[in-house]
Amino acid sequence: MPRHLEIETDHLKQRLLDIGGTVEEAFALAARAVTQRDAALAQRVIAAQDVVDRLEVELEEECLKVLALYQPVASDLRFIVAVLKINNDLERIGDLAENVAGRALALATTVELEIPYDFAGMADGARRMLRGSLDALCDLDAAAARRVCADDDRVDTINRDMYRRIKDAIQARPDRIDALLHLLSASRYVERIADHATNIAEEVIFMVRGEDVRHARTHPPAAVRKGTS
Amino acid sequence: MPRHLEIETDHLKQRLLDIGGTVEEAFALAARAVTQRDAALAQRVIAAQDVVDRLEVELEEECLKVLALYQPVASDLRFIVAVLKINNDLERIGDLAENVAGRALALATTVELEIPYDFAGMADGARRMLRGSLDALCDLDAAAARRVCADDDRVDTINRDMYRRIKDAIQARPDRIDALLHLLSASRYVERIADHATNIAEEVIFMVRGEDVRHARTHPPAAVRKGTS
Repeated sequence: MPRHLEIETDHLKQRLLDIGGTVEEAFALAARAVTQRDAALAQRVIAAQDVVDRLEVELEEECLKVLALYQPVASDLRFIVAVLKINNDLERIGDLAENVAGRALALATTVELEIPYDFAGMADGARRMLRGSLDALCDLDAAAARRVCADDDRVDTINRDMYRRIKDAIQARPDRIDALLHLLSASRYVERIADHATNIAEEVIFMVRGEDVRHARTHPPAAVRKGTS
Repeated sequence: MPRHLEIETDHLKQRLLDIGGTVEEAFALAARAVTQRDAALAQRVIAAQDVVDRLEVELEEECLKVLALYQPVASDLRFIVAVLKINNDLERIGDLAENVAGRALALATTVELEIPYDFAGMADGARRMLRGSLDALCDLDAAAARRVCADDDRVDTINRDMYRRIKDAIQARPDRIDALLHLLSASRYVERIADHATNIAEEVIFMVRGEDVRHARTHPPAAVRKGTS
């Protein structure tokens, strides 16, 4: 890879990881706002979302500039397209963290509710999937990315249990339906965050595999990819 | 734009519009499966989703090939990146149509439910947004794309009404909670399809504006974009 392009792709990757760290923190805070009924914390998460949106637009612009200036091919091109896609996933995760915070706000201002399942554990499972997918991206580690995909089943299982428990709770206490439906929504958002983390991990697998297989097939001779971490 | 590149971008756009037509139809059928309690129709939608997934992967591959072979810049580069992003949205809409079909299947096998709001109208509103965003893409028409974005508010309003009515229905008939929560989920998927249609419309606005403003600023002199419809 030309030296300048290598510097640029390192830079894109670092920015992507920074955005990842920002949305991971926003999500962790939003989940805590749910369990601790902390309206102020929820409002902080909501207020910070503009920053993520701006970072996402800026990173996309940078990707376009690198594509235009360096006209990369093979694995470098694949890498930059993956950055564009993962950037999109991270922006959606940021939106979903904001949505979780919105439900936290609603829950903090309705009657206090004992959460009938392990919401904190479920959210932490999804957050760890996100962290795992970002680490796999950082190290371009397909095996680590595959472990993230496997974890998605675990979050889905917790989610099914959650659904049943919320249903039972609504039947037992129909007067608390508002709070319970807010909780159901918050849990669905968490499930979707886990799905996006899986998307990111799949993109990493595709990138790594693409270097070995796909572009080697379509663009002989494929540029040998240097590590960019 | 070089003649060969023009042929390739026309081709990418046509494939994208074809995928759009396929997911639009899947969504319309899934919504009908909900209102008509048609399990066989729902199963057909679910079985067809593999095709959309395959088409999405193939189109992404083609975009990568065009990027590598023609190394487009300015508005052509922006266009191909937009195709990649819209392709992603369409694949998600396909997934969501499959999810709606999954709920239709569940609803068809539980107790018959009178839907307490205009589900068909809501789904048709979202479907028309999707159609509008694809037409705006076809014509590269930013004004038409802006109208799609404005329609999203209307779907959101229907959705809030839907939420209140489902809540009331659960309180009135807690024994029907299963069916009502399936319906709530199906409606949420419809809302997300409307959101993705809005994303597509925003991407079209960005593309068209980018031709006039963004790339003219960053890559002087900007290639004058020829219509590709």
